[in-house]
This record gives sequence, C-alpha cells and structure tokens, in this order.
Amino acid sequence: MRTEVELISTGSELLSGRTLNRHAQYLGEELARIGLRLTRDTTLGDDRTAIADAVRSSLERVDVVFVTGGLGPTVDDVTRDSLADVLNREVVTDEESLRRLHEKYASFDRTVTEGAARQALIVQGARALPNSVGVSPGELIEIDGRMIFLLPGPPRELKAVFQEHVVPCLVEYFGSRTLPEEKVFQVCGMGESDIISLLEINDFPPEEIDIAYCAAPGRVEVRLSAPHEREDELESAASALRSLLGHHVFTEDRRAMEEVVGGMLRERGVKLATAESCTGGLVGERITAVAGSSDYYLGGIISYANKVKVAELGVDWATLASDGAVSEAVARQMAEGVRESLGADYSIAVTGIAGPAGGTEEKPVGLVYIAVADKHRTIIKKKRFPGDREWIRLWTCQFALDLLRRRLIGAV
Amino acid sequence: MRTEVELISTGSELLSGRTLNRHAQYLGEELARIGLRLTRDTTLGDDRTAIADAVRSSLERVDVVFVTGGLGPTVDDVTRDSLADVLNREVVTDEESLRRLHEKYASFDRTVTEGAARQALIVQGARALPNSVGVSPGELIEIDGRMIFLLPGPPRELKAVFQEHVVPCLVEYFGSRTLPEEKVFQVCGMGESDIISLLEINDFPPEEIDIAYCAAPGRVEVRLSAPHEREDELESAASALRSLLGHHVFTEDRRAMEEVVGGMLRERGVKLATAESCTGGLVGERITAVAGSSDYYLGGIISYANKVKVAELGVDWATLASDGAVSEAVARQMAEGVRESLGADYSIAVTGIAGPAGGTEEKPVGLVYIAVADKHRTIIKKKRFPGDREWIRLWTCQFALDLLRRRLIGAV
Repeated sequence: MRTEVELISTGSELLSGRTLNRHAQYLGEELARIGLRLTRDTTLGDDRTAIADAVRSSLERVDVVFVTGGLGPTVDDVTRDSLADVLNREVVTDEESLRRLHEKYASFDRTVTEGAARQALIVQGARALPNSVGVSPGELIEIDGRMIFLLPGPPRELKAVFQEHVVPCLVEYFGSRTLPEEKVFQVCGMGESDIISLLEINDFPPEEIDIAYCAAPGRVEVRLSAPHEREDELESAASALRSLLGHHVFTEDRRAMEEVVGGMLRERGVKLATAESCTGGLVGERITAVAGSSDYYLGGIISYANKVKVAELGVDWATLASDGAVSEAVARQMAEGVRESLGADYSIAVTGIAGPAGGTEEKPVGLVYIAVADKHRTIIKKKRFPGDREWIRLWTCQFALDLLRRRLIGAV
Repeated sequence: MRTEVELISTGSELLSGRTLNRHAQYLGEELARIGLRLTRDTTLGDDRTAIADAVRSSLERVDVVFVTGGLGPTVDDVTRDSLADVLNREVVTDEESLRRLHEKYASFDRTVTEGAARQALIVQGARALPNSVGVSPGELIEIDGRMIFLLPGPPRELKAVFQEHVVPCLVEYFGSRTLPEEKVFQVCGMGESDIISLLEINDFPPEEIDIAYCAAPGRVEVRLSAPHEREDELESAASALRSLLGHHVFTEDRRAMEEVVGGMLRERGVKLATAESCTGGLVGERITAVAGSSDYYLGGIISYANKVKVAELGVDWATLASDGAVSEAVARQMAEGVRESLGADYSIAVTGIAGPAGGTEEKPVGLVYIAVADKHRTIIKKKRFPGDREWIRLWTCQFALDLLRRRLIGAV
C-alpha cells in the first residue's frame, strides 16, 4: 500500500477568507509521525459534485484519502452525499450514532430535531468513528483495500477523532514503518543564498543525503534527511555541515532563538535586562513569550523618546546631540545603563531606524546598532536590515538575541 | 470571462506540518473584494510534475489561476519550470529583474551568486511583476485570454505583489464590477455569541442585509453587506447597529486597535507611557508597530521582576508583600509610577498571570489587572482571559489599549 496520503478540505468559509484552514498543517505533521506523507490538500467549497470529483482523482493517486468538514446538520453539509455519489451507495442512519446523539443532546436539555438527526447519517457500509468532543461522528470507508476517512471540520473534533480512531487504524494497517532520519540546523547570521553558495563550493551534501531549506527573518532552517538505513552517512553529513556552518548554527532542533538563549541564561544562572528603541518592546515580548522566562529575565526599558534614554538609561544629552540616537555610542550607553540600573549580568540594547520615515543618506532606514553588555565589556554591531518596518524590527530582534548567544558561548 | 479563480499553493513545508498555509484565506478575502470568487486551493509539495498537472486541471475549470511559492533560488524552487512544462516554453532571464536584483544585493553589500541570479528567471513571454519587499518577482502569463499569476510564497511578498500588480490588472480586466456595499464594525468588549444574542433579541439585521462575523482575541469584526442598489437600507442598518453596540465599537474600518488609539493620542496632542509585567513588552511593541508612533509614545518599563517594579516604577515592597504582584494596588502603582517617571499624560499598566505555571485557586492563570492613569484619576479593571499563554497576552494587550480608548472618549 502506498504511503502517500491526500486530504480534501471542504467548506466555503475556507475559501472566502472567513476561516483559516489548519487541517493540512495538523494532519501533515501527525501523518509524518507515523511514516505517512501528505502529498496534496485540495480545499473546496460545499459543492457536492466538486467534492465527488476530487475524491475520485485522489483515489487514482493514493490509497488513503481524508475528507474533512461538511458532516454537520445543515443543508450545506454535503460531504457524505458526495461520497455516496462516488461509491454509488446510500446514506443511512447509524443507530449507535443516533443513540449517542440523543444522549448528548439530553445532557444539555435539548431535543434532537430532524435536522440535528442528520448528524447520525453515514455512508452505507462505512464504520462510524465516534466523536468524543462533538456530535458528528467521523467515518471510515474501506474499498478494495483503500481507506477513505471522513472527519469533522471543527479542529478540536477533527483532532479527537484522528487521534482516537484514525491513528490506531493506520498504525495497525501500515505496521511499524521505517521513517526517514532527519537532522535539523537553525542558522542565524548567514542568508539562504550564502549558505547555498558555501555548501556548493564544498560539494555538500553528498549524493545520498537530501537537503531542504526554510527561511524566515534572521533565521534559515537547513534539514538533512536520508532513509533509515543510511543513518551513518547522515550522521557524518551532519558533522560536516556542523563544521561548515560553525557558530552560525544556533540550535540543532526546532526551538526559537529566544528559547535557545533563554536556556543558556538559565543554565548559567545569570540575569538579563533589555533596552529597546526601534523595536519598542519586541525583544522583551519575544523573551517573555517563553514560559518560565522570569527565571532569567528581569525586565527592560523601552526608551522610545530621547528623554527616556536620558532619564531611565543615563544616556548623555551631549552624545545624543553629537552622534544622534541611532549611533554606536548611544547603543553602548543604553546597554550599560540598563544593565546597571536593573542590576543584570547581561544586557541587550537596540537603537535603529525602522522607517518608513526618518531615514537619511547617512543613516538610512534599516540601520540598526545592537549592543550586548556584561561586566567585562560591551560588544556593538552595526547592521543594515532589509524590508519594511515590521521586517526590520523582526531582523533586529533576532540578531540582538543572536549577539547575546554568541557572547554567551564566547564566540564574540 | 468566468469570475471563479483557483489557487495552487506549492511548498513541501505546507504539507509536512512545518508551515501553515495562509494564502487561501488571504487571497479568498481579497478576491471577494473585487468581485471574484476563489473556488479551489490545491496545496502541493515541490513536485514539478504534480504542479504542472494541477495547473492543467485548473485551466480546464477557470480562467484565472494563481500559483504561489517555489520562485526562490534553490533547487526545490520548481514552479516556473512546471509552468514552462505546461506551456512548452523556456525559462529565461528577465533583464530588468536581474538589474533590480543586483541593485538590491548591492545595497546590502552582497554580490549576486549564480544561485541567487535564478531569482531573475521567468517563463518566456511572461510579464515580471516586481517584488517591492523581496527579491523574486511575481509573473503574469497570459494565454488565450486566460491569466496565470505566479506569486512569491513568503506572505509579505505575496501580499505586496498582489496588491501592487495583480489587483490593478484584475480590476482593469474585469472592469468595475458591481460589488456589494459593505459596512465594517470592529468590536472590543463583547464576545461573538454575546453580539449574536443581542442582535437576535433586537431582530437585527433586517432581511435584505447580510451579516458576517470574524473573531480574534479581544476583537470581533461584524460586517454588514447588501447589493449596491440597497445602499440606503444598508446605511440605516449600520446606524441601528451603531446604537446597539455603542462604545464597544472601536472603529468602523479595518484598522487595528493600536492605530485607532494612536490616532486619538496624536489628535489630542498627548503622550503615553506603558508599564508591563505579564505582557513583557507586547503593549509597547504593538503601539510602536504603527509608523509615526513616536509622536505620542514616550516609552515604557517592562517590570518583569518585582525588584524592577520597585526600583523603576516606585511600587511599594509592602504592597507587593500584602497584595501580591498581580493585584489592583500594584497595577495602580505601576500606572501612576510610569506616568510620573516618564513624564507622560496617560499611562497603561498590566500585571497578570499568563501561565502555564504560577496560577493558584485565588489567582488563576488568566487573571489580569489593567490600569489606565491620567492626571485626574486611575481606572483599574480586573479581567480573567481564556486560552494559553500567547492568547492571554494578546487579550490583555487588546483590552489594555481598549481601556485607554474608552478613557480618551470619556466612556469610563
């Protein structure tokens, strides 16, 4: 049986902008865990013919098909009718599902109307998959050794039916499959195309290893993978990649930069403070998005106005006048000022021009100074980031955390 | 020309669980604004043959097809090759795109490698659609009166190319279609089901008016719409809704809360300061996400640790000991303290338990105190927000800004 799986997501709200379709992400990840690969998601409106056609097409390509949504009580819930069309079967009431429906409605003092009773309908010959958190059951239809799963559209219900009924069923069918081995490297400080060039020059990766990239502001994820039986080759490719990328790799898992840096601070038992200008609180927000960050984060000063830089961080008016707020000298004073006033071991400071206004020829939009101070010294980096205001702030935050990381491991 | 549109989203990360595909939601909503209807999204991996097949199928059903993703510099970026396959054309370098590429790279002191130069490739005969926020241009391919748009995968770039190039092109092609008239109300302080109940009791909306809802943390968007010729009925329904919802409506357009509040502060010529505990900088970050916020935002204190609340905001150790950090008294002292120390007209303070740890029976996870101070008085609200750490922080931020809004309009 083929291990590729297709998904058909139904619901006009998924195509009108009303609702974000999260099913492909959820099912893609969960199927990968059991060695199956989601290769297609077709999202359609509540259109009986279109759904039936899509199911027919999927069955030509794969042996396992998921259809989500359209199992509710209203007239636009057409999924089971579509499947009945495909299979030339009837739609019938599942007595056990109807009994559960009455039970559930009774517990909320509601009676089952004729419309509501439609939720106990299933395709003839299907197996009902009880829905522990909602009303409409899922269904499993087996034909010629192939499997079609109908799952309720509300994400909580889909997840419940999937975990309680679908996973056991797939695991039983496919047995313990051999998953591809994977190594993940997250990189900050090199762009995607820089990494590609560097690897090309070094004839990396070896032929038997697959490589994939995923870029976000200030972060590139590099994934190496190989079949299970090539575990040793993968291991040695990973160690080659590790030497090529060096300190630019901030973690070999999927953690965010703030989790990595937070973990280092906790391990060392040291405290951090922040002083932010152009990011306006974003660095603090990212650090505190991690549960338990109070173990190492004291707090910070958002010094958006110059008078706050002076009053709260001890920045000199004279320096502001001579060098400007976006300067190496001010970044230094901000970092040293916040470290001292909050009594921290380490501090991060950022000052820059996020735009769209405020840029000059000498100090263009995207120019940012990032400083990290500790008791020994203050390190300052001048950067010019691309993109709009949002992007510049994201890059700044990521590089600021990365500079602290590099300081903590002694790389700067 | 048919007004149905199909989307083909490409990228293996969209099916592996790594990335959430938001394109269908965005494009569905934006296309509806110009009278077009998204009827299908097919999400595929970076598979040249599968993409080519999907484009062929779409062209059998509709006249406008969007293909997103796979326009970058790496070998798994196969979209333009797929299109070249479908159309039996070559892939060629677009000189203008290459020139822009060199210009953009030069501005960041980087040179265009051979890999990077692939981003200037387009399908022969296509029109390049310049990407103002990224590197890879979009493309428009016209064949037999039908249009295929290739759009970059990163959402920011997709949005820029779509708004700057695709919308004008579609509007020109389809002419000024009669779009439904629409009125938007954004509400904070009432949940979606509260609003629905209130409107039901009041027999709203009248039959000829359509109503739709969209909920996010601390915000419900209510949209009324009607055909163009019912503009008067829509107008009177809008004014009925306005009276029903009162001060809970924070804006009648699509602006975010921080833009609405920022606009009010600027209009009044007053300055704001913030003191944040559980949100860790999120309130400052949201305020400063708006360009020009330095006109009214001075800055703030992120007082994550109690010693920072005392040293920087003048909170009493005694109050912290008697009432705890998450209390009405501490919220008051934080708001008044930051207002005074930063010399602001208005201040916002938040202190709460974002979880997952730190909750008690008396002070559960989700408990938050929000304070707004001005020279006359300090208003404090106690709230209990649902959801996880991220949601609690989002709700808190939204309600904190809303409390300031209500204070500014004299509603509290």
